[in-house]
Amino acid sequence: MTRAEIIEQIKIKRSFLCVGLDTDLKKIPPHLLEKEDPVFEFNKAIINATKDYCIAYKPNIAFYECHGPKGWESLKKTLDYIPKDIFTIADAKRGDIGNTSNYYADTFFNYLNADAVTVAPYMGEDSVTPFLEHRNKWVILLALTSNKGALDFQFLTDSGNEELYKKVIKKSLEWGSDTNMMYVVGATRAEMIGKIRDLAPSNFFLVPGVGAQGGSLEDVANYGWNEDCGIIVNSSRDIIYASQNIDFGDKAGEKAQNLQLQMAEILKNKGF
Amino acid sequence: MTRAEIIEQIKIKRSFLCVGLDTDLKKIPPHLLEKEDPVFEFNKAIINATKDYCIAYKPNIAFYECHGPKGWESLKKTLDYIPKDIFTIADAKRGDIGNTSNYYADTFFNYLNADAVTVAPYMGEDSVTPFLEHRNKWVILLALTSNKGALDFQFLTDSGNEELYKKVIKKSLEWGSDTNMMYVVGATRAEMIGKIRDLAPSNFFLVPGVGAQGGSLEDVANYGWNEDCGIIVNSSRDIIYASQNIDFGDKAGEKAQNLQLQMAEILKNKGF
Repeated sequence: MTRAEIIEQIKIKRSFLCVGLDTDLKKIPPHLLEKEDPVFEFNKAIINATKDYCIAYKPNIAFYECHGPKGWESLKKTLDYIPKDIFTIADAKRGDIGNTSNYYADTFFNYLNADAVTVAPYMGEDSVTPFLEHRNKWVILLALTSNKGALDFQFLTDSGNEELYKKVIKKSLEWGSDTNMMYVVGATRAEMIGKIRDLAPSNFFLVPGVGAQGGSLEDVANYGWNEDCGIIVNSSRDIIYASQNIDFGDKAGEKAQNLQLQMAEILKNKGF
Repeated sequence: MTRAEIIEQIKIKRSFLCVGLDTDLKKIPPHLLEKEDPVFEFNKAIINATKDYCIAYKPNIAFYECHGPKGWESLKKTLDYIPKDIFTIADAKRGDIGNTSNYYADTFFNYLNADAVTVAPYMGEDSVTPFLEHRNKWVILLALTSNKGALDFQFLTDSGNEELYKKVIKKSLEWGSDTNMMYVVGATRAEMIGKIRDLAPSNFFLVPGVGAQGGSLEDVANYGWNEDCGIIVNSSRDIIYASQNIDFGDKAGEKAQNLQLQMAEILKNKGF
């Protein structure tokens, strides 16, 4: 999917919402467990209920991989089921030496046909660039994550008073462009989104941590905004586990719509 | 597998060799491609030919994942086929927020029953500790990798003149112990293995980069040695792709034996 197509979807749907498909058999409504493929049945209902309110879906691969080959089948079916005008992100946080990253890219871009994959930066350039060689596909590089452990290494500051997460942004801007590289920037540190926006004015940011993890949508929009909107805000648990009952789809749809309405208001106020 | 069992295997086999199972359909002997599961057929022959010379096997998950559910079946069959007294490392370089890392740990330790998994440190403590909660299982944390991209971030130096890879070692020593945590330390930077040994005197190091990537076995042993040997040296391509013909198993066995004999000499010289 191209940058122009993503921006077009934001304008059409009045939304910059990504729904995280972290589908956990321990948390889905129990009546689904009798089905042949409970993970896919759940995802299908969630997608049906939320697809008008979001512009992206993000399955986290851990929740599929733990079921072995069957999990990969559920994942493939889910990605195939998502409407083609919605951006798909394989949240995999992969990264290995060049030859190996090539195979990961093959998995996510060719086999699964996802539009984007999240990548961890620790191993540097040759672990990231193989993902950038696929036309109209995206790397979403971890920069500043929303978890507590982000404090352990991402804020390491060099003699020039620059933190690791900023180094990751600056260095990686040499590898890709705003048409094939986005950044993960956690909503729990909203004021830092502004600092990262200064470093990477045109790249899109994928922002997790709104809702369950405590980040505020308004703050994210104020700090992260650029002329093309520039932010995709992810919500997983708050939406997909809104109900454990037979009405789980409807409730997920309501939660997604609620966020979409807030986003529409923000887009309107920004004159977008 | 316990630390004592790993050390016992090193003593019995006179080897600290790990064979990397980076099984690539483009590189295996063409006659295997007619088989029902070429990846597993190749691995089976490699394991049969090398199992007396190595103490560990390390399948890199990228090479399996790219085949979808079928690849995960080949991977599972391979891990089940490896003799139980040989240490198994899922080279996955995973790492995500705590709840998600729990599911990755479940995949590699419960579903696949591997002894160890490689983990990327960028997201910090809560991305690593879920893997440490499994009895007799191991995290092998990326510290200093053998690729060119290692120079991009791993050598970032703070105001106290300490590089990121050293921070990763020092910080993570608070999370695990020498009975559940090892480090990836690339052989291509042998003199730095000594510096890391000073920081982590008792942990085992998994050392890639000997052979194809240019690291020297003698240097690795001299810099990385501790009283329990303390090093597991990985070789992948040099061994498993020693021949593209019908004799590929025999040739792989010869390559592995050649390395084992060099290791036996080192162990003897060290009085181990």
